[in-house]
Order: sequence, then C-alpha cells, then structure tokens
Amino acid sequence: MQQFRTLRGMRDFLPEDAEKLRYVEMVARELAKLYGYEEVVTPVVEHYDLLAAKSGEEIRERMYAFRDMGGRMVALRPEFTASIARLVATKMRHEPKPLKLFSAGSLYRYDEPQYGRFREFWQANYELVGSGKPEADAETLMLTHDLMERLGFHTYWFKVGHVGILRGILAQEEIAEERQSRIMQLLDKKRWNEALTASKELGASQSCRTTLKKLLETQGKNVSQVLKKAKRCVKDYDGAVSAVENLGEILELTGESGVKFETLIDAGFARGLEYYTGMIFESYVPGVEIALAGGGRYDKLIELFGGEPTPALGVAQGIDRIVLAMRKKRVSPKVQEENKVMIIAVGEEPKRKAVELSVKLRKARICAEVEVMGRTVSKALADADRRRVTHAVIVGPEELSEGKVALRNMKKREQRVVEIENLSKEILRDTC
Amino acid sequence: MQQFRTLRGMRDFLPEDAEKLRYVEMVARELAKLYGYEEVVTPVVEHYDLLAAKSGEEIRERMYAFRDMGGRMVALRPEFTASIARLVATKMRHEPKPLKLFSAGSLYRYDEPQYGRFREFWQANYELVGSGKPEADAETLMLTHDLMERLGFHTYWFKVGHVGILRGILAQEEIAEERQSRIMQLLDKKRWNEALTASKELGASQSCRTTLKKLLETQGKNVSQVLKKAKRCVKDYDGAVSAVENLGEILELTGESGVKFETLIDAGFARGLEYYTGMIFESYVPGVEIALAGGGRYDKLIELFGGEPTPALGVAQGIDRIVLAMRKKRVSPKVQEENKVMIIAVGEEPKRKAVELSVKLRKARICAEVEVMGRTVSKALADADRRRVTHAVIVGPEELSEGKVALRNMKKREQRVVEIENLSKEILRDTC
Repeated sequence: MQQFRTLRGMRDFLPEDAEKLRYVEMVARELAKLYGYEEVVTPVVEHYDLLAAKSGEEIRERMYAFRDMGGRMVALRPEFTASIARLVATKMRHEPKPLKLFSAGSLYRYDEPQYGRFREFWQANYELVGSGKPEADAETLMLTHDLMERLGFHTYWFKVGHVGILRGILAQEEIAEERQSRIMQLLDKKRWNEALTASKELGASQSCRTTLKKLLETQGKNVSQVLKKAKRCVKDYDGAVSAVENLGEILELTGESGVKFETLIDAGFARGLEYYTGMIFESYVPGVEIALAGGGRYDKLIELFGGEPTPALGVAQGIDRIVLAMRKKRVSPKVQEENKVMIIAVGEEPKRKAVELSVKLRKARICAEVEVMGRTVSKALADADRRRVTHAVIVGPEELSEGKVALRNMKKREQRVVEIENLSKEILRDTC
Repeated sequence: MQQFRTLRGMRDFLPEDAEKLRYVEMVARELAKLYGYEEVVTPVVEHYDLLAAKSGEEIRERMYAFRDMGGRMVALRPEFTASIARLVATKMRHEPKPLKLFSAGSLYRYDEPQYGRFREFWQANYELVGSGKPEADAETLMLTHDLMERLGFHTYWFKVGHVGILRGILAQEEIAEERQSRIMQLLDKKRWNEALTASKELGASQSCRTTLKKLLETQGKNVSQVLKKAKRCVKDYDGAVSAVENLGEILELTGESGVKFETLIDAGFARGLEYYTGMIFESYVPGVEIALAGGGRYDKLIELFGGEPTPALGVAQGIDRIVLAMRKKRVSPKVQEENKVMIIAVGEEPKRKAVELSVKLRKARICAEVEVMGRTVSKALADADRRRVTHAVIVGPEELSEGKVALRNMKKREQRVVEIENLSKEILRDTC
C-alpha cells in the first residue's frame, strides 16, 4: 500500500541511525554553548517570499513550496539563515551585538533524491551577527573543525574561498550584482566555460576574462602560496585585492591559534547561495563526495530584511550527512556503556514488586524495564539476551518473602540472590 | 512587511524559551533511556492517507494537508502514532516484541490558534508495542508522572478513563464501531446531550441510555470508590465490566509501586483519537487549562497498517505546553551555572593570542568567546556585563610579553594578572 511507505526522498531513522543523528545534534549543541551561542527555535513553515528573498536561483527552484489552506504561498524552510535574519531584523532588533544564534532541526528541498541529498535533512546552524572582523570568520572555521574533531573524525579538510574576489572583479567591470549572481551560480555548478561566456555577454573585458580564467585555476593546499598567486592575478581589481587580503587575515588567525586543519584554497570557489559577500567554505571527509558543512559571510542580508546594515556570517553543519560520513568512516558516538536491567516477575504478587523495583532502580539512574509480555522466565531471559540487557532481576514469591530477589549478570551468566534493599548497589558494583 | 513575520499560528522561541523547550526534550529523552525506549526519527511530511487512517474526525479536519509539487496528497504530521505504527508494521516488523519507541519533534495542525494551541507544536512521544498487559499501561502512567516530577512540578494530576467502558456498552447494543466513534467524539467535546441523542438514534435501548447517563457522572478522585460505582453501573454489559476491571488492575499496579499521583477517574472520559481501545489518560497542572500529556491503548492500529494483530499503547508529552506550564508555575530548568568567559584583545598582536586562548579554554570545557566587535576594553567589559559573562580575560601586549593576561571576575569586579598557562585553572578555582 503506497500510503504505508515514506514519501519519496523522506527517510525513517531506525534506532542505530537515530542515535547517531541525536548524538551529532547534541555535540553540536554543546559546542554552541562553549562558543557562546544561544539557541533559538523558528518554524519549519514560513512565507515563501521570506525564504526566497535572497537564497539564490538554485534553492528557489528546489524549494518545498505549496499553497496552504488559507491560500498563502508558503514553504518548508530550505535553510535556517533567512529565518534567523528575520528574527534579528525584527524581534531581536534591539539585542546588543554580536548576536550568536544556534539552531538545529529539519529542512526541506523538493529535489531529485540522490547520494546524501534527501527531501528532508537536518542541520545544526550557527549565525554570528554583528561583526565584520576576521576574528568572527576565523571562529566559524574553528568551530567547524572543533565539531569534526569532537565527533571523532581523524581526517577532514576545508575548501575555502572568498566571494569578494570574483564579485570585486565583476563589480569593477560594472556588471550589476544580480547579473553577477548568474555567473556565480554557473561557477558553483563548475560550468566554467558557460560562466566565462556569460561574463563576456554581460560586458566583461578581454583582460577581465583572462583574469577570471587564471583565477579558476588558482587553488591549492599551500595557503600562503595560493593567496600570493591570487593577489598577483587580481592586482588590477581593488575590491578583489582586499578580498584576498581579508581571506589571508582570517586564515592567519586560525593558523596561529594552534588549530591545524587541511585547507584547500580555491580562489574561484562559489556557493549556491546568493547572499554571500565574503569568506565562504565547506568541509569534507575523504571518500564522502558531499560537503558536510557549508558557510560564509553575508553582510547585506539583515539589511534586506528591514534591519540595520549588519555584518554577519554563519555555518550550517549537515547533521544527517555527518551521520552518513560516520557510517562510512566507522566513527561511533562516544557514549558510556550503561547498565540495562530487565525485571521479570514470577506470578501475580511479585508483579507489583517488579513495578516498584523498576521505580527504585530508575531513581538510582539505572535503565530498568519490567517484563510486560507475560513470558516465562526462560523465554524472558532469552529475550533479554537479544536486547543486550546487562542484568536480569527475577522476582519470585519465595525469595520475595525473605526480602530478596535473584540478580543475573547476563554477560557472565552468573546468578545470585541479593537483598532487595541492596539491589541498585549490587548492580552498580557488578559493573566496575 | 507581511513576509517578514511568522505565519499565523507559528512561533519563534527566543533563547529563554528555546532553552526550556530543549530542556524538556532532553529530560524526556533521558527518561526514554531509563525506561528502555529507543529513539526513532520519522519524517514531518507523510502521505495524507496514512495520517488520516484512524486519527478521528477532529484531527482529520484540522490536518495541515496540501498537494505537493508531484501532485501527491500529503500532510505535516499531526501526531506521531500513525508514523510509528507504519514503522512497526513495515521496517520493524520482524523486531522482537515489546518494541519501545521514543520520538521527539514538531507536529502540525491547521487550526484556529488559541491558548496553548498552535499550528506548530512539539511532543515527546513514547510507544510501547506488543504488550496487552496492565503492567504496560501502568508503566506509561508512571513514566508521565516521572517526567513531571523530574521537571520540578510540585502539583499535577491525571485524568484517567477507559474507552472499553463506553465501547463495551455500545457494542452490546449492536452499534457499529464507526458509529460508536461519532458518539465518542461528542463525549470528548463534552456535548453530552447530543451524545445521548445520537446513541438513541443509533438504536441504543432506554436502559442503555440510562446507564450511559449515570456513567457520565461516575467520576472522582477516590479510585476504588469510583471503580466500584462504575462496575455496578455497567453490570449488564460484560465488555464494559472487563474494561473497568482492567482499569482497576492498572491503577492498582501504579498505586502499589510506591508512586503517588493524584488521579481523577472519569468513566465517561473519551479522547479525540479514534484508534484508542483501552485505558486513556491526560495529565494536567492546576491553573493551566490544557492537557500537558495524553495517551492510551490502541490494540487494533498496527493491524490496520498491515502488521500482525499487535496490542500497543503510547503517550505524547506536549513539550511546548509543558514550557507554558513551567512559565506559569515558575519552574526553571535545573541547569548548572557555568563559567562564561570573554576574551578581549588590546591591539593587533594579542588578537591572535586571544583566539589561541579561546581554543585552550574550550578544551578545558569552559565557555569562551573572543570579542569580535573591535571594541575598546571598557566598552567590551560593559557588553560582557550585559551578557552575564563571569570572567573577562584581557590580553594586552605588556602582560603578554611576560606570558601573562589580566583575569577579571565580573561579579566581584576584581582583576588580577595570571600566568597564561594557569588560566583555565584560575578560572575554575574562582568558581568554587
């Protein structure tokens, strides 16, 4: 039956993957706290116009849009930044800057499902609003590095660029901002020849196109070398030169902070979102072909939403993509192994005691389940084994009359009779 | 500008409320673990037919439904149970029972916004699949009690009933199940006279209607008394008698487990969802007029979704309603007060050191922010005060040359010069 399946591009996360999803979210939330970000929660459904305002053609085309029952054109959010910009320009308008806002949740794109790309996906999102300083850019990079490290990835790398380099050149050639975006989108899709043709059509000079072409080849892992090359390449374009210098400052700050991560500088790097104005970056894990995180600076967006001119930048960590990478790289959540106790009652009277014991164990922070299937002890024990229960507590009428129960260590397959009042202690002792 | 507002019935949660929302979710998740529930994540968007299958007229009418761009009739989930039942009947079909599944997330109803009712809301949901035993029902009640207690509510009460009482009577009067649902819905809306009229129209005998009428008045806080009265009242209806007995067993198990909570037994209690077959309940906090949690037994639902006949029950905790109640009752999240450090660099060279120090502090699990606004020290300190920063670290060129920085306790307004290598230790010592 069709309706008993998930919709195309939508997924169920069964326990093992759901645990990873929540684990990444939790680590991302802890990190937000450590970096001084406060969490906000915004709706999944927003006005279409808000979400479309500055997201870029690619996102607009793939927005999960529909008309609601009140006839409003709405959409399921494709990213967090528009909603956060709305918040900053309205309800949080008078909050002192910088505003550091964290969000985590599900996002939607109506797109052809493919490797790592689904119609519903999850992100942990960090926005730093109010600062145009390179320290802010550096922090966003470091935070992303920190997340990967804390999750237990050993190798990962960053692709870093600066939208100001290309835009600086195109602006000096007097190509209007909107038209620049068209070129940026082609570059984002790696359609370089089309991008060069488009720039010609839009009136870019021959020398400009030569510069662009050279720039697209200006990339590599030796930061200072690539930046030097890029600076030489764009030397006739003041805006582009400042952009290269800005990028240099940002990377110097991260480099000298003792944080080391592999960086691919790519002077011709563009991202799908129109609103970027400065440094942009993505993070990758070798062997996983999709970006796990993406971010950048967007100094004009808050203004567009009716706020004061406010420099800002942000990064979105793709939670379910990170889960994908964890599976691929065999990175496991670092969770403490915990006791898991199954309480099995033999007969009617002990049933009540079983329930009572479960309450006591949980108060001692021990995971405790009462057998609720009415199984025999041997069947219940077999089931407990399947569930990786660490201890079974068997409540029989005889022991019970002496204030005792049988405690079975499932792993060691050892069973002993213990005083009820010592039960939690016995279980905890058993673990050490 | 219209589009820069949230949609009708949708809310933003600013930091203070967002923290409560996430806190309730976290406590609910911890509780799930303690009770042996595993988390699953299902999509927000599902086939309309799945969500409508057995949810009841009330929910169907208010479903956030729309046609997607592929022409499919879909909806934003109004509750978790249908999705979990789908999962249990399909992908988790062969998992050993009982299956105990936890979910948390946002849900949607296209409804007139009113006190405590919004178009987007959040729930923590627990489903216990595979057991028809009263121990399972008792556990669901205890879990709900446990959540309220752990969150720090001092007074709360449960309204408990059993769908089998009314359905047992109506079935014996040979009123078909679907028609029974119509009567149950009227009862849920407290339209008692209409419910009685409807039962007459559907062929219920005079004595049946007298029984129903008496039953609607059978409620109170003295559990054994009310149950005795209910049993007497329905004595001619075998199905209803078993239902009262079942309810008695469930409440006896919770009562004797040492868990105490106030209970209002209501023999004529009905809930909006059609799929209930047994015990149903809601939890309340005095002074907050809406149910904070709701749940019950639904032994036919899994079957309906193509699974084996499988007894099951569940409870949904209204996360944002609980936040509302926390605000009303002045219940605060129990979170540890943490150090919050602001690092302020004086000049260019110290800027790099500031970034480096922030990395070190965070490694020591201390929340640390670098001043990213380029403010003077005095302005930065004033801002730090506003943000309830506990310590400021001032990195000046002079102290830096001696391997030192100034550490300022913001609360005590005391400042001292400390060795950089002792910085974390000094901050942590300062807290004790």
